[in-house]
Amino acid sequence: MLKRYGGQTVLFTKPVGIMAAASVVGPKEGEGPLGTQFDRVEKDPMFGAESWEKAESEFVKTAADVAVKKSGAVMDDFEYIIAGDLLNQSTGSIFGLRDTKRPYLGIFGACSAMGEGMSLGAMLVDGGFASKVLCLASSHFCSAEKQFRFPLEFGAQRPQTSTWTVTGAAAVALGSIASGPAVMGCTTGKMVDMGVKDAHNMGAAMAGAAADTIAAHFVDTGRSPDYYDAIITGDLGYVGQELLLQLMKKKGHDITHKHRDCGIEIFDKDTQDTHSGGSGCACSGVVFAAHFLEKIKRGDINKVLFVPTGALMSPTSVQQGESIPGIAHGVVIENV
Amino acid sequence: MLKRYGGQTVLFTKPVGIMAAASVVGPKEGEGPLGTQFDRVEKDPMFGAESWEKAESEFVKTAADVAVKKSGAVMDDFEYIIAGDLLNQSTGSIFGLRDTKRPYLGIFGACSAMGEGMSLGAMLVDGGFASKVLCLASSHFCSAEKQFRFPLEFGAQRPQTSTWTVTGAAAVALGSIASGPAVMGCTTGKMVDMGVKDAHNMGAAMAGAAADTIAAHFVDTGRSPDYYDAIITGDLGYVGQELLLQLMKKKGHDITHKHRDCGIEIFDKDTQDTHSGGSGCACSGVVFAAHFLEKIKRGDINKVLFVPTGALMSPTSVQQGESIPGIAHGVVIENV
Repeated sequence: MLKRYGGQTVLFTKPVGIMAAASVVGPKEGEGPLGTQFDRVEKDPMFGAESWEKAESEFVKTAADVAVKKSGAVMDDFEYIIAGDLLNQSTGSIFGLRDTKRPYLGIFGACSAMGEGMSLGAMLVDGGFASKVLCLASSHFCSAEKQFRFPLEFGAQRPQTSTWTVTGAAAVALGSIASGPAVMGCTTGKMVDMGVKDAHNMGAAMAGAAADTIAAHFVDTGRSPDYYDAIITGDLGYVGQELLLQLMKKKGHDITHKHRDCGIEIFDKDTQDTHSGGSGCACSGVVFAAHFLEKIKRGDINKVLFVPTGALMSPTSVQQGESIPGIAHGVVIENV
Repeated sequence: MLKRYGGQTVLFTKPVGIMAAASVVGPKEGEGPLGTQFDRVEKDPMFGAESWEKAESEFVKTAADVAVKKSGAVMDDFEYIIAGDLLNQSTGSIFGLRDTKRPYLGIFGACSAMGEGMSLGAMLVDGGFASKVLCLASSHFCSAEKQFRFPLEFGAQRPQTSTWTVTGAAAVALGSIASGPAVMGCTTGKMVDMGVKDAHNMGAAMAGAAADTIAAHFVDTGRSPDYYDAIITGDLGYVGQELLLQLMKKKGHDITHKHRDCGIEIFDKDTQDTHSGGSGCACSGVVFAAHFLEKIKRGDINKVLFVPTGALMSPTSVQQGESIPGIAHGVVIENV
């Protein structure tokens, strides 16, 4: 019998526990409002490596180690590792996890990686294919700027709609728990293309996908925004948040007082010069792991719809005149 | 209760049917030994598009349409689409599938994409999360050469160890069937790094991963090569095949008479100037869909271990002196 609850949504009969989560970030993230909440703030953005790409892999490796240690398990206990990042051919994840010697499933969902990974990981556990799955997502400001935009040395001026790629990595260990935060289901997103072609305005490119997934979740489950204590998107930033709230109102849902965005939480707009907010695969991952998951554990919030958002583009696709489709994957997390 | 059979392997209690598969290829593939077996040979490698990247997306779109049509279902019946390719940020898959309006899970496993996709897709069906999943993989000789090696116009001489990236896309529709070929389980691969740094010798970089996954499958299941009528790797080519057979003998298994490689099957070495063979995400996908799946349907072979292989690298990682880890995902297919 299908476990589906509706068009895009799966709800589990048995919660999939979040055993532990880890957040490892760079110095700028450490100076932000959540600075004291991360597991580790690495002062050297190169993390002792020879290149930004290799540094990103060091963040990944460290986040994996920290999450496994916090979970009380060992790496060999995890039947699958699921990981994704923004680098060409996902080398941030690959070289960070090369030595784990665990079955490896690479994903690409741009900055929605943690949403896609947690959804797949939870389904693999609920389906009986694994007892434990480790999900990772990473990004690095310098490797992303180099690959997607301009050489850092060029000192290009950034428009106010642009976001700042978070340097760091997050890891979430899924498995069984006696009590605490657990994944209760997921709403897998469709690609939504709003026709945005401005690679410096990812919030606008992703807002439509976030609205589509959140609205689909309500239709599938019969729930309303009232059900949740918080609806947390990945990296829409200030520009994307405004659009999301408008789009949701058009769809008949006012989520104004429930909405939080990881990209807005991670930096101080007034003092950190990050314009529309934070972004990158690590953004939703580290803010969830360090901040929101702890709030759930404390009981400050109990029911959360976590919706990492991704802008699906490459420099080549933008140069060839393509618009930027967005995608957003919803993960239901509740205290059990 | 866990459905696992061993360290890296899942065997399903109920087979996951292969409803249909599609293969759409370019002109060079059409001129090869399997030319008459593909669903469609597109004579224009640009597929009417303005760029090689957009052409690759046209191959993806067409393969999806053909597979869905052959399956007797409609696109809206598929609860998930899982797709991967080699292009930066997976734009081959993304722009090819943007208009499907189905929940989308992007993957990255380099040329192992069809193995990773079919494994995940079959688990989602067996786990009760979907009734139908569409899995895709694509590559394009021209987009791959441009991105990974030299501009085509440069006319670089290719070493004899190099392989020729297959132009095309494959799609496999998983769901329920009354009888015929079905996915019975999967062995998810670990990254295996043999220390190979030569990006013109992918066969050598991947052979260790293929041997690791095949040997793990035998350990996990207690089976020997005798169980299978064919053990089919993705794109090891002639160089990689020789290494795989040697490595398997060292592990105590002689698979010489069972082994087939999609990269060897797709081109005629003597007349097509493809050196060590074919490669690319499409290679294993289209050869499986057009050739081996049909052989299973006819009962020529009944039990198959299909092992798409991937070389995990980017031009940046190679330029920075990194070696090339390999990965291989095993999929068990039997006539039921």
